[in-house]
Amino acid sequence: MAKKFIIGIDLGGTNLKIALLDLKYKIRDKEVLSTRRLGNKKGLTTAIVSAINSIIENNKLSKSNILGVGMGLPGPIDAERGIVHFFPNIPGFREVNLKNILEKKLRMRVFLDNDAKLMALAEHRLGSARSFKNVLCLTLGTGVGGGLIIGGRLYRGFNNASAEVGHIPLNEKGPACNCGGSACLEAYIGNNRITKYARRLFKRGISLEELSAKAKNNDTLALRIWHRIGEQLGIALAGVVNLLNLDAIVIGGGVANAGPVLFDKVSQALKERAMSVQSKHVKVLQAALGSNAGLIGAAIAVRERMRP
Amino acid sequence: MAKKFIIGIDLGGTNLKIALLDLKYKIRDKEVLSTRRLGNKKGLTTAIVSAINSIIENNKLSKSNILGVGMGLPGPIDAERGIVHFFPNIPGFREVNLKNILEKKLRMRVFLDNDAKLMALAEHRLGSARSFKNVLCLTLGTGVGGGLIIGGRLYRGFNNASAEVGHIPLNEKGPACNCGGSACLEAYIGNNRITKYARRLFKRGISLEELSAKAKNNDTLALRIWHRIGEQLGIALAGVVNLLNLDAIVIGGGVANAGPVLFDKVSQALKERAMSVQSKHVKVLQAALGSNAGLIGAAIAVRERMRP
Repeated sequence: MAKKFIIGIDLGGTNLKIALLDLKYKIRDKEVLSTRRLGNKKGLTTAIVSAINSIIENNKLSKSNILGVGMGLPGPIDAERGIVHFFPNIPGFREVNLKNILEKKLRMRVFLDNDAKLMALAEHRLGSARSFKNVLCLTLGTGVGGGLIIGGRLYRGFNNASAEVGHIPLNEKGPACNCGGSACLEAYIGNNRITKYARRLFKRGISLEELSAKAKNNDTLALRIWHRIGEQLGIALAGVVNLLNLDAIVIGGGVANAGPVLFDKVSQALKERAMSVQSKHVKVLQAALGSNAGLIGAAIAVRERMRP
Repeated sequence: MAKKFIIGIDLGGTNLKIALLDLKYKIRDKEVLSTRRLGNKKGLTTAIVSAINSIIENNKLSKSNILGVGMGLPGPIDAERGIVHFFPNIPGFREVNLKNILEKKLRMRVFLDNDAKLMALAEHRLGSARSFKNVLCLTLGTGVGGGLIIGGRLYRGFNNASAEVGHIPLNEKGPACNCGGSACLEAYIGNNRITKYARRLFKRGISLEELSAKAKNNDTLALRIWHRIGEQLGIALAGVVNLLNLDAIVIGGGVANAGPVLFDKVSQALKERAMSVQSKHVKVLQAALGSNAGLIGAAIAVRERMRP
């Protein structure tokens, strides 16, 4: 029998990543394209198909070596039927059966899911969440997304729209959010808010990387910003912990690179605001798989969903 | 074979209810005692044992007719081992293995659980939550408790302390809560807060029953109070709905008797604050089993846990 591989795809607002993974979820080859340059639905699907074909060819494989294609996508997805409801940051996809489109063009099995859910799946099967049964995996970036593992399985909810942690209200009243609500956690701790907050304090534009570096050097203003972000995140998570009595919370995404300055404050706020019977058991951990979590999760999804 | 029955017990801060139920969970006999008059651990366990014995005798049954005893208790419980961690409102129970104590005295099987979890179980098996897979059942009273059904099963979390909906922070800062945290939902919509709020507006003491009656007669002040409570509950539930993408929310307990004036506002706040993909699917329903939900849930727990 031919040796089997999986194609993993991670579509983000900035990058489209396409990788070849082996059955141990090791990345054997990877291509990164600019999402914005590919533009609309046609441009993106064409690029995906040709990148898959070339990655197979470059590795001297044929389609019979590919178990299937897994895709992590930045928006609400009907994972069962393979429908993209829409992407908040990529135009042209409204109620699109991307699974059907790609399966026809590729003549391979294709599986779609929300990117944060696949990240959670990857962290649970291979990363920081591995030994836990009930876990929230968070990604902190422009958006604040998440995936919930309940009883060791990905929890989807009614229509696969669970774990929208970024849209938990942090206050009764507060800033308007892109989702249509207001005072959502994301409006307080999303990348845009952090850089705006930093610009106000530093009186100049400053990147998250610089802000993290400054905090590591004990810069007072940078520490103040990360402490505030950590506290706000911790308060929202106190509600999640009191509701779900979780074993662990795994935090990833660019903002998580701030490290202990952020994590310590999250743990402190959890301790102060969650009930002791819940807060004393919950572990707060940094994600282990970094920016490859989405690709790995996409490959895991293919493997797990193709099992009889 | 002798006809089988179940003993259901519901211990609250005010009343201790003991009932005989048949295998269809119909209440055949019921006794209600005052919790406060029984006082401490010894008084309570003695009263429970003698009430059980007399209910069996009065119904011309013997212990061989009793499948088991189920108990709903007002605090955190280790349901597997039968340990009461403590009761916030009843003194004398700290890390007490009440299951062992009662099984020795009764020579019957005894099962313990948290009262709100048993209410959720009852509403899911026989009440308003019956046809739903992922449901939050809420009890609104002095405390704001809850039980979560996930995938059709009671979700317990790490140490059976899930669904503490009353302790979701509603704001970053706010009034101190009994749990040690602050700005918890319970501090805004618990009975005590509602009556305090009503006293301020009406400039006299006023019961929840009167407040509900006044609202039904379109009293402006009463409407203002219920709308505010409904809005605050709805904002907290928006976070729960965005996190869990629930099928339904079932609301019971004394405060829920306010009816549409409360429920409509909860639904409105959910619509305004939760994301549309989640909020358009979630049903908000009044609990169906009333004040017997705890007894019925206790009986269901006995039956389901004695199945092989």
